[in-house]
Amino acid sequence: MKRDGFSFDLLHVDATTGARRGVFHTPRGPVQLPAFMPVGTVGTVKGLTIDAVRATGAEMILGNTYHLALRPGEAIVRDLGGLHRFMGWDGPILTDSGGFQVYSLAQMTKVSEERATFRSHIDGAIVELSPERAVAIQEALGSDVAMVLDHVVGLPNTFDALADAVARTTRWAARSIKAARRPDQALFGIVQGGLFPELRVESARQLVELDFPGYAVGGLSVGETPAEMYAMLDVTVPQLPADRPRYLMGVGTPRDLLEGMRRGIDLFDCVMPTRNGRNALAFTDEGPLRMRNLKYVRDTAPLEANCPCPACKHSRGYLRHLFMAGEMLGPILLSAHNLTYYQRLMAGAREAIAANRFASYCQDRISGWVRSGEREED
Amino acid sequence: MKRDGFSFDLLHVDATTGARRGVFHTPRGPVQLPAFMPVGTVGTVKGLTIDAVRATGAEMILGNTYHLALRPGEAIVRDLGGLHRFMGWDGPILTDSGGFQVYSLAQMTKVSEERATFRSHIDGAIVELSPERAVAIQEALGSDVAMVLDHVVGLPNTFDALADAVARTTRWAARSIKAARRPDQALFGIVQGGLFPELRVESARQLVELDFPGYAVGGLSVGETPAEMYAMLDVTVPQLPADRPRYLMGVGTPRDLLEGMRRGIDLFDCVMPTRNGRNALAFTDEGPLRMRNLKYVRDTAPLEANCPCPACKHSRGYLRHLFMAGEMLGPILLSAHNLTYYQRLMAGAREAIAANRFASYCQDRISGWVRSGEREED
Repeated sequence: MKRDGFSFDLLHVDATTGARRGVFHTPRGPVQLPAFMPVGTVGTVKGLTIDAVRATGAEMILGNTYHLALRPGEAIVRDLGGLHRFMGWDGPILTDSGGFQVYSLAQMTKVSEERATFRSHIDGAIVELSPERAVAIQEALGSDVAMVLDHVVGLPNTFDALADAVARTTRWAARSIKAARRPDQALFGIVQGGLFPELRVESARQLVELDFPGYAVGGLSVGETPAEMYAMLDVTVPQLPADRPRYLMGVGTPRDLLEGMRRGIDLFDCVMPTRNGRNALAFTDEGPLRMRNLKYVRDTAPLEANCPCPACKHSRGYLRHLFMAGEMLGPILLSAHNLTYYQRLMAGAREAIAANRFASYCQDRISGWVRSGEREED
Repeated sequence: MKRDGFSFDLLHVDATTGARRGVFHTPRGPVQLPAFMPVGTVGTVKGLTIDAVRATGAEMILGNTYHLALRPGEAIVRDLGGLHRFMGWDGPILTDSGGFQVYSLAQMTKVSEERATFRSHIDGAIVELSPERAVAIQEALGSDVAMVLDHVVGLPNTFDALADAVARTTRWAARSIKAARRPDQALFGIVQGGLFPELRVESARQLVELDFPGYAVGGLSVGETPAEMYAMLDVTVPQLPADRPRYLMGVGTPRDLLEGMRRGIDLFDCVMPTRNGRNALAFTDEGPLRMRNLKYVRDTAPLEANCPCPACKHSRGYLRHLFMAGEMLGPILLSAHNLTYYQRLMAGAREAIAANRFASYCQDRISGWVRSGEREED
């Protein structure tokens, strides 16, 4: 099916890495790539008004099909004007397919050739999700980019289990294409294959034959090490067509974003900025700060001197106080800061790629994070 | 002590009620009266960034001495630049004295002539609060208006208990004046007396002799009916000098604000807009809406058509969804809406007073609330 209003411009490839500067055009406006999408799980980026989300610099956001289908249900979102109107976001939205949540959140999941059947993590109700139903839900939600339903399995796992998941994911991808009806919604395929390079290559080849307008790398961030994840990108990305956007699903730490971009990834999403923010961890160029730490009690400095976010109008001492007192404003401000940090990291990366200095940009950022000796939480 | 930069302009008294249109000038700018102060208990108006507080239309906010003294402690607030810088609020701030919290929150409270002694509701630590200490804490916080420590007792209560509290409150008020050092901070007295008109009159007379730059009516909202509260205003307010601002502490419902203004009150504070907002209740001209109600599930209308708040950019169906899903954004948006509602109610009142139509303004608002048959929670 012809999709209206979607195109991908590859503006520049960094001289010494695989990092790409591009633009993803959508009916709801362009997205400068590489880009990070905040996660609006159930129709809200946790803790932020939609104006606050916009103020972080985000151009495109993500909604979770699994969560929205369970609550409030896609028919209600549709009746309330679709996901954009529901959330008050007029820019592009990508919805995932629910494949990852069926693996990670649902209970008593059974996957057959026809569909996944599981119990809702909210009320235990039996729910069915087929490739066709995942497309129908996303069409009801009215997202700009929909994802095919993929079969995600945990790692480590056997070759046979992963080969089976790859084959099913390809068959489901073909069914998804047949099921799609909306000309104003682009459908992306999802590469699986676990940590087996040959399966990753095979999965990518099969999906590329189906000619998607964009490709995701899925089935990662499910128990493997960062090095294993980066190795899978090394083998997968070269299999993907250069003229389509590439999306690394559910990833990751600031370091993961740099390593993904270095290998040619254009699009990311992750709950880390908001989830960590709610838990008092602030991302900075000096590494993560744990804001409950006593050392900040009289610290008059902001989290970061040059950050335009609402948290950085306050002292670290104030932010610590908010968390110690259990005030909502702590999670609100740190979520805003972390999302702003991620957007600034991406904006810096885009500039660096255009100037052929992405390698030194990565080195500068990583050395700043490493100096602190702190680690992010997941 | 001479206070710099404080003055009260009485602009107009409504032709048919006691409602007053005035301006309270402070070193940090003017406050249009009558005014409602959002409560920033522990250095944050719960759920709102300070920019969001400003966007509701608030000109002056309140901080709680008791809460801030316990957490983080006034010395830390002072070291972080004072309460204004701590919160990021450059307008005027009023701090209460802790008298009400010693009555309502503290445990094992003992009140002697010298001081109140109690256990912190947070960690059980023994805390002492004397009139001098209440002033010192508020001077460390650096609020623009400080309140004297008053002796609050529950209602109903005996004449003797209340007469005793009145006498002690007056003696403590005199000690507070002696203790005050900051020329940039105004100190207000607090009228006590429970539901005994003669005690209210006596308390007001004694305090007026001490010549405060402003007077509060305290010891209300502690178990009496609205009619009993209004009756106490009827006897108390005429005892207060017309050329000083009058503040009704901790009150109240939208109806209470109208009834207070009608009787000549200039200043209010209350947690109702934020506390009710967190609990899914939205104030509107049609009465309160309970946003978990199933009837809103597909309601595409905003809470109120003409409200400029961030909640009213969304549908009622979306707001209901946020509460049903337990999302932080529900409390955030309804707190913003309710504070905006209170500020709009006050702005409308100021206009109505200036135009000598405050009585009909009250009638219009009250008939709208009554039609719905709903009641606010406390």
